[in-house]
Amino acid sequence: MIDINLIEKIYKEDRRSIARAISIIESDNSSASEYLKDIHKHVGNAYRIGITGPPGAGKSTITNQLTKHFRKQNKKVGIIAVDPTSPFTGGALLGDRVRMNDIGMDNGVFIRSMATRGSLGGLSKKAIDAADILDAAGFDIIIFETVGVGQSELDIAQATDTTIVVLVPESGDSVQAMKAGLMEIADFFILNKSDRPGSQQAYTALQTILMIKDHDENSWLPNIIKTVASENKGIEEIANEIDRHKSFMKDKNLFHQKRERQSKIRIKEIVEHKLKDELWGETGENSLNSSLQKVVLGNLSPYQIAEEIIQEFKNRI
Amino acid sequence: MIDINLIEKIYKEDRRSIARAISIIESDNSSASEYLKDIHKHVGNAYRIGITGPPGAGKSTITNQLTKHFRKQNKKVGIIAVDPTSPFTGGALLGDRVRMNDIGMDNGVFIRSMATRGSLGGLSKKAIDAADILDAAGFDIIIFETVGVGQSELDIAQATDTTIVVLVPESGDSVQAMKAGLMEIADFFILNKSDRPGSQQAYTALQTILMIKDHDENSWLPNIIKTVASENKGIEEIANEIDRHKSFMKDKNLFHQKRERQSKIRIKEIVEHKLKDELWGETGENSLNSSLQKVVLGNLSPYQIAEEIIQEFKNRI
Repeated sequence: MIDINLIEKIYKEDRRSIARAISIIESDNSSASEYLKDIHKHVGNAYRIGITGPPGAGKSTITNQLTKHFRKQNKKVGIIAVDPTSPFTGGALLGDRVRMNDIGMDNGVFIRSMATRGSLGGLSKKAIDAADILDAAGFDIIIFETVGVGQSELDIAQATDTTIVVLVPESGDSVQAMKAGLMEIADFFILNKSDRPGSQQAYTALQTILMIKDHDENSWLPNIIKTVASENKGIEEIANEIDRHKSFMKDKNLFHQKRERQSKIRIKEIVEHKLKDELWGETGENSLNSSLQKVVLGNLSPYQIAEEIIQEFKNRI
Repeated sequence: MIDINLIEKIYKEDRRSIARAISIIESDNSSASEYLKDIHKHVGNAYRIGITGPPGAGKSTITNQLTKHFRKQNKKVGIIAVDPTSPFTGGALLGDRVRMNDIGMDNGVFIRSMATRGSLGGLSKKAIDAADILDAAGFDIIIFETVGVGQSELDIAQATDTTIVVLVPESGDSVQAMKAGLMEIADFFILNKSDRPGSQQAYTALQTILMIKDHDENSWLPNIIKTVASENKGIEEIANEIDRHKSFMKDKNLFHQKRERQSKIRIKEIVEHKLKDELWGETGENSLNSSLQKVVLGNLSPYQIAEEIIQEFKNRI
């Protein structure tokens, strides 16, 4: 059951309705997909930017400064801050507090923090769904800010038009280790706090790694932008680099390819999510529980039980 | 098609056969589940320990020292080092090199590093499957060493009998942020490098957080063990704490409950994994690709396409 009135209000950019719609998505209510289906015709115009990096790299500050930059151009900005609450990260709360004092009162900015524990996959799915709401509401730019600590930032990177990885000079030593994973998601890098000692070495190290990657004139080569975000240095350069990446993708006809790939990944996730719901509904749970005793007694392997459950599921649907 | 000969050799603790069986699991070959079903009757005797924590906390050193301790008691030790190759972590390679010189030549120790990119969920499943091979081969203790950066260490923690979280004094500031996630997975903590400045404050801070958690005489209260693993200080205390936790669980009849819960989670994962295979087999991919054009043209929402695919899947199976 969906509330047509709510949808109309989203189109009118009513902040409370937008917030409510995102809450419906977060609650994983079955009506969420109905809302998303309904608004789909208004989705696709926002440019989606991912900002990720290790804790403490300055992602929130960069997001805030970049938002102010876009606001000067009269663009409306939606921010989705994704915090998978990994045991070994933090800082989201502080970032939010700073943010609220800074850009939170601007009516052309909508900020939403999304966090959950235990189901990272679900979190990225919900963040992408929430972006659809903001997109339909007419926000020009959507920024996903993610703490780069696992699968969720990779998933979200797959759903953005431009992904930016923020590093600081101190993370130089980890550059070696992370080359593989980062090369694939970063459309460009920000070396923040670049007034700190060791900045030039970190820059050179990163550049060296970037050069290793295969590339020709038709492939995009990630740049490194030096910033001191807390002093607003380099923010315009970030915005320019986003524009350059956007133009490159459109010129080379890569933009639609990318969005097509994204749609495919997203549909897969939705299908799997829905099937899981059907699988582990009440009947599924019962069949699982009744099978359990057999494994614990040690007679049947989990793999054998799994086959029984799948057979039961196939008969059921 | 499974090789009975290979299975017989696993039971005889033939190292090459064990390695080959784990490779079959890693390759996600369909025969992997057949092997796991077959060996199941020999699985369940090994005690499974998880060691997790942020990069640089000294997990490898602790694992090595603890392994040497167990070897003196004539216990055979299997080590599964799980590195999700998250973009922002590293160090596994170095750890492995140190390890190989240290305990790698001992015939009573089997070490396997498992790493993958892009599918953390799959990685923890494979690590748990690999532990079954080592279990069936007669290893008394299996240690999962994971870099604590996301979902995979939580998944693996759910598959161990005792989970240990390693911290260092410097991570004291993150203690605040990580309290929620860690409390749930840690059966006890190691404060490593406890000869460093700030160690006592870190200890007190951690203790304070631990006291906040609800507990009564029937619940296990995680301890904090101070170590300097590089100097072999505190290793015996770790082993004693593992024993104390094991005894507590057995006395309170929690051990079987825990393993039952683990079986349930594992069966669910296997079922979902197998269904995904069927879903996205050749037919599924075709139906997805043919549907794709519709979304990109903007007429149909991903949610609508997903429903079509699910309907097609139901008709197919």
